[in-house]
Amino acid sequence: MSKRLDVLGIGNAIVDVLARADDRFLVDHGMVKGTMRLIDAAEAERLYDAMGPAVEVSGGSAANTIAGLAALNAKAGFIGIVRDDQLGKVFRHDITSLGVHFPTLSREHGEPTGRCLVLVTQDGQRTMNTYLGASQLLGPDDVDEAAVARAEVLYLEGYLFDPPPAKEAFYKAARLAHENGGKVALTLSDPFCVLRHREEFRVLVKDEVDILFANEAEIMALYKANSFEQAREAVRPQVPIAALTRSEHGSVVIAGEETHVVPAEPVSYVADTTGAGDLYAAGFLYGLGRDLPLSDCARFGNLAAGEIISHIGARPETDLAHLARVRGLLG
Amino acid sequence: MSKRLDVLGIGNAIVDVLARADDRFLVDHGMVKGTMRLIDAAEAERLYDAMGPAVEVSGGSAANTIAGLAALNAKAGFIGIVRDDQLGKVFRHDITSLGVHFPTLSREHGEPTGRCLVLVTQDGQRTMNTYLGASQLLGPDDVDEAAVARAEVLYLEGYLFDPPPAKEAFYKAARLAHENGGKVALTLSDPFCVLRHREEFRVLVKDEVDILFANEAEIMALYKANSFEQAREAVRPQVPIAALTRSEHGSVVIAGEETHVVPAEPVSYVADTTGAGDLYAAGFLYGLGRDLPLSDCARFGNLAAGEIISHIGARPETDLAHLARVRGLLG
Repeated sequence: MSKRLDVLGIGNAIVDVLARADDRFLVDHGMVKGTMRLIDAAEAERLYDAMGPAVEVSGGSAANTIAGLAALNAKAGFIGIVRDDQLGKVFRHDITSLGVHFPTLSREHGEPTGRCLVLVTQDGQRTMNTYLGASQLLGPDDVDEAAVARAEVLYLEGYLFDPPPAKEAFYKAARLAHENGGKVALTLSDPFCVLRHREEFRVLVKDEVDILFANEAEIMALYKANSFEQAREAVRPQVPIAALTRSEHGSVVIAGEETHVVPAEPVSYVADTTGAGDLYAAGFLYGLGRDLPLSDCARFGNLAAGEIISHIGARPETDLAHLARVRGLLG
Repeated sequence: MSKRLDVLGIGNAIVDVLARADDRFLVDHGMVKGTMRLIDAAEAERLYDAMGPAVEVSGGSAANTIAGLAALNAKAGFIGIVRDDQLGKVFRHDITSLGVHFPTLSREHGEPTGRCLVLVTQDGQRTMNTYLGASQLLGPDDVDEAAVARAEVLYLEGYLFDPPPAKEAFYKAARLAHENGGKVALTLSDPFCVLRHREEFRVLVKDEVDILFANEAEIMALYKANSFEQAREAVRPQVPIAALTRSEHGSVVIAGEETHVVPAEPVSYVADTTGAGDLYAAGFLYGLGRDLPLSDCARFGNLAAGEIISHIGARPETDLAHLARVRGLLG
């Protein structure tokens, strides 16, 4: 237990329920394509009944990133809440079988394990409806102080800002990480999540975040920018490293006066973009932990994101370390 | 409720838990690649703990066939037992969301919903470890007589011969189907299943079965044949129609003096063969229900099997009817 952790993630512990749908279905059920919305238990029930046949795969934004890091053989840990039900067992199995340290005990009472009903359209885009369930019980007491203290990087998802006790846990963990010489990484998660918490996110990024992950829509929402270039310059003085993803246009890394533009990994067929941002972060943080140049960190991110969008589900199906070796990114 | 059903399936109601594994893992855990073995709750627990991260998808042999038929817009029904737990809800959702008539109520007590731990090796082969759970509670009282009476074809899986009350249900349903002018179809399921019940299967095929599905290993095991040709001739006088699948060599349909050899559907990449036989049966029965020539029924079978092996999981991910139209099999 005295070993360092490369990355410790704190996030919602969610099982994804993925089904194919057409654009009409999204419209009929009031969804905005490509975004995430929070739903309650009753709405989750209604929507599930209306959806087609599904596949269940462990998910959760930070948890996907941590799974990706573990698949690259990084030492990783995760904190998040599940119930002691069947889906909770699935989540725990999937993350621990990758060798991830997962100290959080399953809750024996209360709401069931959280789930995200993901509608995947023909174009590979995913539209998410999240019932947080047990996940929203995460509070400051769940922050395993020993785990945070031994993490090189603490990785947090913006979605944690939705339930107030999780936000408290978030601040506590960030403070602990910095006290112990760790860095704090944050992903903005979703443009609507940014709209819900813009002012707080801006302060947080400036005061607490060392490495920021965001896609184009999120970074533009954060700084009310009219163009990506404007958002890119707005974030530059706010945070030491910002890794900004732009879907098929690859990613842009900002660090002080440096700007690295790295093209996307070529993908022959986009099956499902669920988890693309999460896996980009996994690859990027893996590179960073090995002190690679920032442009190679971005290449690692693109590689992992490229794998994840080639199949259904947000957890890697192939050996990412092998893939990186093939591409010359790992010796 | 007075409408006819094209096909009514009776089978184990199972959720598949699919994970990648290497050949070494199979050997270390005493499995024979490509086969199915029954395990108890404790062994299921042990094996699950040893497996890597998994994906959960509804399965069950006859249930997969019924799902395939529904995906082709056939009127289909299913009888099988789940518990009222989370995996049971998943199974029920997936099959009913396809429009399948599923009259069996979930059990409120006893063992949890059955699951099949499927190890998928690099070559795409699947090796199955089935914990029947609630599924083995299926008995004669669960045979919905109204549903059987209105089925054109009753479809049964050989796996039902393992738990004795299910076998009783099997015979009751077959008798009812014939009394109401329906046909009885059977899949032999697995060579080990054939070895467990050879003598009974032989009598059953001769006395009760109108359409038999088997792969090469199964039909050879049934007639203790030394070659496929020998098995093919042994089955010929026993059953009106035998549809025999031979993996990449396609399938052979025997009907009286007729023999139709139909090549396999070309597949660029075999991801996971789970459900290939089940989906072949779906396509074949669909064609039969539309009075297509037997060789076209086999082509339909190959088409559906080809789709299922191109991805992880035993339920169709693409529109099979559309695929059939593209291939000129449907007008």
